[in-house]
Amino acid sequence: MPHRRSIPRPAARRLSLYLRELTSRLEQGEETVSSKALGRSLGLTDAQVRKDLGIFGQFGHPGRGYRIDELVAQLRRIMGRDRDWKAVVVGAGNIGRALLSYDRFRKEGFRIVAVFDASAGVAGREVSGFRVRPMSELADVVAKEEVRLGIVAVPRDSAQQVADALVAAGVEGILNFAPRRIEVRDGISIVSVDFTVALEQLAFQIAFGESGSADGEADDGAPNEVESPTDG
Amino acid sequence: MPHRRSIPRPAARRLSLYLRELTSRLEQGEETVSSKALGRSLGLTDAQVRKDLGIFGQFGHPGRGYRIDELVAQLRRIMGRDRDWKAVVVGAGNIGRALLSYDRFRKEGFRIVAVFDASAGVAGREVSGFRVRPMSELADVVAKEEVRLGIVAVPRDSAQQVADALVAAGVEGILNFAPRRIEVRDGISIVSVDFTVALEQLAFQIAFGESGSADGEADDGAPNEVESPTDG
Repeated sequence: MPHRRSIPRPAARRLSLYLRELTSRLEQGEETVSSKALGRSLGLTDAQVRKDLGIFGQFGHPGRGYRIDELVAQLRRIMGRDRDWKAVVVGAGNIGRALLSYDRFRKEGFRIVAVFDASAGVAGREVSGFRVRPMSELADVVAKEEVRLGIVAVPRDSAQQVADALVAAGVEGILNFAPRRIEVRDGISIVSVDFTVALEQLAFQIAFGESGSADGEADDGAPNEVESPTDG
Repeated sequence: MPHRRSIPRPAARRLSLYLRELTSRLEQGEETVSSKALGRSLGLTDAQVRKDLGIFGQFGHPGRGYRIDELVAQLRRIMGRDRDWKAVVVGAGNIGRALLSYDRFRKEGFRIVAVFDASAGVAGREVSGFRVRPMSELADVVAKEEVRLGIVAVPRDSAQQVADALVAAGVEGILNFAPRRIEVRDGISIVSVDFTVALEQLAFQIAFGESGSADGEADDGAPNEVESPTDG
């Protein structure tokens, strides 16, 4: 096993894509896959695939490739996907509602257990099958339900305050949709989704004459990656 | 000038972050910045900053650092941000509505000119100040308004079809919110935003014991990057 915290982030992101691709192959009845075939599906070189999967130990079987079921089990365990993760959403606006009705979360083991909103008049309403709760109930719900993930879906100006409340309540990670940087103490993880940055990257690709075709150097495969290795 | 298509994507993403940070410093009246200070703000080493900005030529002035106004102007030009970009949204559901009411797009030079929806009964409705149009009007609007960007905010099953329609209508790039890979022909750019992958990355960080603090190896700074160099 590697030293903790030693995985380069782009590699960490590619693991999501490997897991998705392998799960899909498993569902289609495939038993083994070569690093070359896996790379081809994801727009990566086979050397990159071997290197990434090698971070976690020796998964491959020389001459036979990877056993897909073994690799899926290992990846799921390494990535913490062998258990369910509970999340709360703060912000019952459009983004919050989109998340609440996003049925793939549950399928992937992410369970939104409650939604909160600080706006007067919003708490108490029913949204996508959830009763919106006031912020005053946040700490209780997080503690009682053992919620580990908090999703910030509030406007920019209240994002830091909401993040602080989530961390104080006990979440270990924050998914931030607000278009600003959020500060958290060491030990709390953050992933940000910024729609404007996504559009900027798209405009940049066009301005710079890039195409959307996969290439081996796309060493991210992030939530927001340049298309090629995504899910699907 | 470098050869086109030669910029590594993580570097391309960092440019968004440089531009944001530099614009913020410019607004605060700063005139110059060192690669060290810029790196510190974004969680990158000064060597990384110099390398990234060096891709586009020599911006720095030895001993004085970068002139912020020059650098902002250059970055804006390189990234295609010295002009406005028109976009259309397909899908008037929660994500589409969130995008239509996202006021930062306009501020950043992205102008959504129309929203379309294929669902019976949705076209004709008013959503976030837009009249939802039927898909039959897509090609006309894209041509007449010279729209270059298409945003796919429809469910997974119709995403490819919508992307095909956008490309046929003439857009040059697609921002894809549907949780699946979309295929496009060469020359069309794609950026994907996948909420599930974002949550997966967050869970992975926690499972693997990562913290959210900035580190020099976060060589993405993507829309969906691990927090540190974001906007704000």
